[in-house]
Amino acid sequence: MLSTLRSSLRRFSSSASRADRAVVYESNGDPASVLRVLTYPDLPQPPADSVKLEFLLSPINPADINVVEGVYPTKPSLEDALTPAGAPQPLFVGGNEGLARVTALGSGVNSLAVGDWVIMTKQQAGTWATSRTVSVKDVLRVPSPESLTEVQAATLTVNPPTAYNMLSEFVKLEPGDWVMQNGANSAVGQAVIQIAAARGLNTINFIRDRPDLEQLVQKLKGFGATHVLTYAQLADKSFRNKVKEWTGGKAGGSDTTSMVRMLGNDAHLVSYGAMAKQPLSLPISLFIFKNLTCHGFWQSRWYTQRSLGEREELMKNLVDLMKEKKVLDTPEHDIVTITAQESDEQATETIRDVLKTMSAGRHGKKVLLKFQNS
Amino acid sequence: MLSTLRSSLRRFSSSASRADRAVVYESNGDPASVLRVLTYPDLPQPPADSVKLEFLLSPINPADINVVEGVYPTKPSLEDALTPAGAPQPLFVGGNEGLARVTALGSGVNSLAVGDWVIMTKQQAGTWATSRTVSVKDVLRVPSPESLTEVQAATLTVNPPTAYNMLSEFVKLEPGDWVMQNGANSAVGQAVIQIAAARGLNTINFIRDRPDLEQLVQKLKGFGATHVLTYAQLADKSFRNKVKEWTGGKAGGSDTTSMVRMLGNDAHLVSYGAMAKQPLSLPISLFIFKNLTCHGFWQSRWYTQRSLGEREELMKNLVDLMKEKKVLDTPEHDIVTITAQESDEQATETIRDVLKTMSAGRHGKKVLLKFQNS
Repeated sequence: MLSTLRSSLRRFSSSASRADRAVVYESNGDPASVLRVLTYPDLPQPPADSVKLEFLLSPINPADINVVEGVYPTKPSLEDALTPAGAPQPLFVGGNEGLARVTALGSGVNSLAVGDWVIMTKQQAGTWATSRTVSVKDVLRVPSPESLTEVQAATLTVNPPTAYNMLSEFVKLEPGDWVMQNGANSAVGQAVIQIAAARGLNTINFIRDRPDLEQLVQKLKGFGATHVLTYAQLADKSFRNKVKEWTGGKAGGSDTTSMVRMLGNDAHLVSYGAMAKQPLSLPISLFIFKNLTCHGFWQSRWYTQRSLGEREELMKNLVDLMKEKKVLDTPEHDIVTITAQESDEQATETIRDVLKTMSAGRHGKKVLLKFQNS
Repeated sequence: MLSTLRSSLRRFSSSASRADRAVVYESNGDPASVLRVLTYPDLPQPPADSVKLEFLLSPINPADINVVEGVYPTKPSLEDALTPAGAPQPLFVGGNEGLARVTALGSGVNSLAVGDWVIMTKQQAGTWATSRTVSVKDVLRVPSPESLTEVQAATLTVNPPTAYNMLSEFVKLEPGDWVMQNGANSAVGQAVIQIAAARGLNTINFIRDRPDLEQLVQKLKGFGATHVLTYAQLADKSFRNKVKEWTGGKAGGSDTTSMVRMLGNDAHLVSYGAMAKQPLSLPISLFIFKNLTCHGFWQSRWYTQRSLGEREELMKNLVDLMKEKKVLDTPEHDIVTITAQESDEQATETIRDVLKTMSAGRHGKKVLLKFQNS
């Protein structure tokens, strides 16, 4: 509610009255060294097929760090770079995901209105900025924004659709079917649990052992998880027989040999997280005699291959789940705020400190960036 | 021609005039210890839905050894076992593949005629025998038998259909597309080369280095292989760039990380041979960012899941390829003959010696079993 009020107020502020800023880098490297905050001149009116956006909140995701490092398979394009007058080379803007408000329309745009909330479907469009101009085909309107928090909307592009599509693109799942997943406490894992529960699917969820295990188990069960288990239990053979009992040998899910060995015939294994350095290693006999099929899923590719209608339907389905089933609630998060009072140098320090912490290890919560403009 | 003449003559011999024999085992174990040849009483007239068969030639495949050892995922069923009067327990008959001639029809059978050549589509039906009674739904008539040798027909059940279906079940391949395979000198590998060439598909084929490498390369190129290369070349990075040049990055095929790394986006990897003890181990990033899909293929499952019409069409397509494109010629082979003069004990020695040799290592040629009945 608060966020909606704030964004309504902001509709009346003029983007011309303040400086635009972005988190940029010239060349790949350690984010804590190469990123800096830059103030740049106000953007001109958008071209006919484009819109001007004001970013409200932009996640800083682990993959964004890999992009800055140059080790991610996709790179920001030159057309999305900033080229301030006198700059010796283009400046890439960080950030892939973000919630923005439309502030100006190109003359040919009639599918969006000023004030609409949008998210990016183009990769690496550069969302760590106050304001950007983007082609209308690279954004998607957020349906029913009044029912979402800014954090929910800002994290709507990648994780919830990944979970939603993995449960619908590869095999037709019916209520009562079983889905098995590891990394069940990740953002996608939590979304899988909730979307599966809303559809009447059973889930078996694997997590690492930890001091506060029982607390996490209760949290995931609160999301609708049927079973939550540790990898140590997964390694136990008597336990694997129990799983066969539960599922009647009928289960489909994701990852690691022990888990896959429990799957029934004709199972589908879908991998979506490439953070793991370990390869996927499976006995060939599982493919041949149990008819296992392995797929990868990448939400970014999905956006490039689907029509606007299909993208809009996906968002509508997700937001409907949020409204009607009360799932996919605002994730735990920290917001890093860059105030208007901070100089570019001070803001650069703030950003580098955050990135240093994130690169060092598991943060646990979503981290989002907010530029304060007033 | 000779084989056709022989099988025509045999039509006039009466199956009642000689003893029936089979290679049997009571319990799993080393084939060279547990297999024995047994003479058993003449089979009665077949039930209404069954036919009586005389086997002309039955392959001894590596997987048959695994079945006798008890390490193959499917077992012969009790209904296919022999239970001679006074036997303390059922005797399993070895053999999965074989060419047989119909010698008698059950009263309800009108889809086959006496004299027809048939092959088995049921697994582990027990083909190492002179004569068996089988349900009509478990056999498939060999089309145009006059155009095939006995060896071609006897080896038609598993390898050529595996190659044919792998090239058609998973992805729509158009003339000019590229297929990559390892184990290219296996029976299935050679069939893949020939069927692909007949369809205008390009193949890149990997084989082990060996003293007579050039000779084998020429043989496979004679079958229509576009490129034949060794695993050492596969490990060479500059070579991998050459492959990208040839294929324009567009290739689909089978097995091992180095090979898969050369594949283009949206490739399909199909495994069919479970002899390898090594698991399939692939970087997860290939699944996610290159949209690789991994499947297994098992011709035995295919038969159980398809209609009679589809099975017949498969055989027709294969035999048409043989007749019109002159591919899938009689494979190199050795025939082990059990003569009518040999006692069961002598025949048992013969069989055990063959199995001992086969278990010891690569035989290279197809081995087929023939009972001489005259």
